Amino acid sequence: MTKVMAVNAGSSSLKFQLFNMPSEEVITSGIVERIGMDDGIFTIKYNGEKKTKTCPIPDHQVAVDMLLEALIDEGVLKELTEIDAVGHRIVHGGEYFSDSAVVDEDVVSKVEELCELAPLHNPAHLIGYRAFKKALPGVGHVFTFDTAFHQTLDKERYLYPLPLEYYTDLKVRRYGAHGTSHKYVSEQVIEMLGKPRGSRVIVCHLGNGASVSAVLDGKCIDTSMGFTPLAGVMMGTRCGDVDPSIMPYLCNKLNKTPDEVLEIYNKKSGMLGISGISSDSRDIENALFKEGDERALLTSLLYARIVSKYIGSYYAELGGCDAIAFTAGVGENAAYLRRLIIDNVSKAFGVFLDEELNSVRSSENRVISHQYSQIKVMVIPTNEEVMIARDTVRLLGL
Amino acid sequence: MTKVMAVNAGSSSLKFQLFNMPSEEVITSGIVERIGMDDGIFTIKYNGEKKTKTCPIPDHQVAVDMLLEALIDEGVLKELTEIDAVGHRIVHGGEYFSDSAVVDEDVVSKVEELCELAPLHNPAHLIGYRAFKKALPGVGHVFTFDTAFHQTLDKERYLYPLPLEYYTDLKVRRYGAHGTSHKYVSEQVIEMLGKPRGSRVIVCHLGNGASVSAVLDGKCIDTSMGFTPLAGVMMGTRCGDVDPSIMPYLCNKLNKTPDEVLEIYNKKSGMLGISGISSDSRDIENALFKEGDERALLTSLLYARIVSKYIGSYYAELGGCDAIAFTAGVGENAAYLRRLIIDNVSKAFGVFLDEELNSVRSSENRVISHQYSQIKVMVIPTNEEVMIARDTVRLLGL
Repeated sequence: MTKVMAVNAGSSSLKFQLFNMPSEEVITSGIVERIGMDDGIFTIKYNGEKKTKTCPIPDHQVAVDMLLEALIDEGVLKELTEIDAVGHRIVHGGEYFSDSAVVDEDVVSKVEELCELAPLHNPAHLIGYRAFKKALPGVGHVFTFDTAFHQTLDKERYLYPLPLEYYTDLKVRRYGAHGTSHKYVSEQVIEMLGKPRGSRVIVCHLGNGASVSAVLDGKCIDTSMGFTPLAGVMMGTRCGDVDPSIMPYLCNKLNKTPDEVLEIYNKKSGMLGISGISSDSRDIENALFKEGDERALLTSLLYARIVSKYIGSYYAELGGCDAIAFTAGVGENAAYLRRLIIDNVSKAFGVFLDEELNSVRSSENRVISHQYSQIKVMVIPTNEEVMIARDTVRLLGL
Repeated sequence: MTKVMAVNAGSSSLKFQLFNMPSEEVITSGIVERIGMDDGIFTIKYNGEKKTKTCPIPDHQVAVDMLLEALIDEGVLKELTEIDAVGHRIVHGGEYFSDSAVVDEDVVSKVEELCELAPLHNPAHLIGYRAFKKALPGVGHVFTFDTAFHQTLDKERYLYPLPLEYYTDLKVRRYGAHGTSHKYVSEQVIEMLGKPRGSRVIVCHLGNGASVSAVLDGKCIDTSMGFTPLAGVMMGTRCGDVDPSIMPYLCNKLNKTPDEVLEIYNKKSGMLGISGISSDSRDIENALFKEGDERALLTSLLYARIVSKYIGSYYAELGGCDAIAFTAGVGENAAYLRRLIIDNVSKAFGVFLDEELNSVRSSENRVISHQYSQIKVMVIPTNEEVMIARDTVRLLGL
């Protein structure tokens, strides 16, 4: 038996799962949420029991330390050295990585170099990696890149209409993100469709970060995130696509540098910026349904409109669509947003939800569309961790 | 009989038509093209005769002077004072103008204020206006705004997912452009469809600037240009939508200011940037078909892909589509680009061109789709000038 820890350090969360491999049995799992907030939440599941602790979790270092302590305290492990390997999710692998990689100094320095392309993520990943490396110096570490699944995009999808030398010399192109999730979810969908040839799948990964992908016959042909994970659909705190002229306008009007405006685009926009309430869709949902808050309604409508426009584009690119899948925190849980999104494309594509199936909460893969819907709509809980564990075992030869 | 001059000063061209109103008879018309280039072209049509002159045309002032001189030289007019009114196309009217306006100092200062939102256009319009005003001080002038037709967009289409105060305090929102053209063309299309209720029309205005609009029952519900005419699809020299993170990245890498990068986005990108050849689709077409140039092919594929993605989005928003219309320089003439664009959405939407009809050159409204196509595809030569002349007569009570 080999024990592999899969770590997924997001912009405001850190998920972990300890696997027995190759059985893929989950020994323990958990999540640290709302990192950076005073009401951070640490949750660990072990032996069918779930323990939750709410406390300030100022940064990722604190989150990793809490997690490692808990493994001993809860009796999951006697010593941390029982862990044989650690796999880490990394958002941005640039053009360096078209597959996962065993971590060495060169790999770390490339990921560091790519921090400017994913300023919310790669630094968090490296903090997570270093904390684990310190605790577990003797084991192998693997990085699994969220950009790898999108390396199948062709030039007419990954190039921007900028001077071509910005691509050839400065590597400015669409890289996409959330690839591990898009890959896992699209594989699950294709399985549920009965593995038809030429399957056409649209995956809506809607979490604090959010992206939409078009997957044709198992290969990603287009995705909404771009050069960085800022682009594409509206997110928790990120704006996604906006007119590129807005930045110089704001720089001039607000007397800010481009990096300062970028910070606002990344951290003060999206659901938070429009609602003025929160970046968390649960808070928006509460404000909308309990208080009838107008800005919460506007936030929801804007969010759904933008996602549904991407669904329209990808339907065109795929030459039709067999299934639309929702995943990640918002996609798996926010039934009202799924309904708004599907309603927006319902007439055009003959896709309809079954209201009852849509409102069920479950952690299983499930179909939520009506039996007469032309496109199957599914909720697929994402599982980036098992993908990371598999790659870790494969690359380290465990 | 009232003589109205309609002026359409674009980023690199100045079109004019002198109308007898209300008959809408065109007395003379012409175009100054490739303004800013050494091989500028001045063309005037009068009495069934067309005269063309190639010479350097450094700026819009020179273009207007050439045009006014030619009216006398060609015997169109004995004196410039025979012109009763002048209507001018203005790209950006912000939220100030939801209809055309009689020009006074207040209107001019608002258009001046809006130059920062349309740096390629509003200054050129004002140069054109002032040159005409100087020559014709005694007549009424009217501005027709390209943003007016898009004022019917609802909030979930015109807001950006940025902090909401950027809209309320700084007026950052989607305004769109080319509205006069989108209005004219969609009216022609609806006429040709036999005025069905709830008609669903996608207009592709593809010129040196380019934009796509979704028109539901005669009202614009969405459009690709944004806060400024930089956003949306790829254009002659403009990039359209790109990841907003690219600007600060380029500022840092190239040691440029945001305004300098914006200049590159506006003037060195799009077809010119990818091809390295020209911003003119005729030059790209020549390089592609006569020389098999690879970058010309890439330019064409990228251009068609981006336009077709907007068609997919708008098909979803309109709940289906009755007609796709192509207009403006590229849309009316570049049959190979029309084919690439329609091919991209052919399988998804059951839309097919008739190859023969698509290859015909004509200045008439025409259907170019196959008889079995689920969506009618049309070429509609745009006529912003007649819309301007009509508004000029209406608002001045002539």
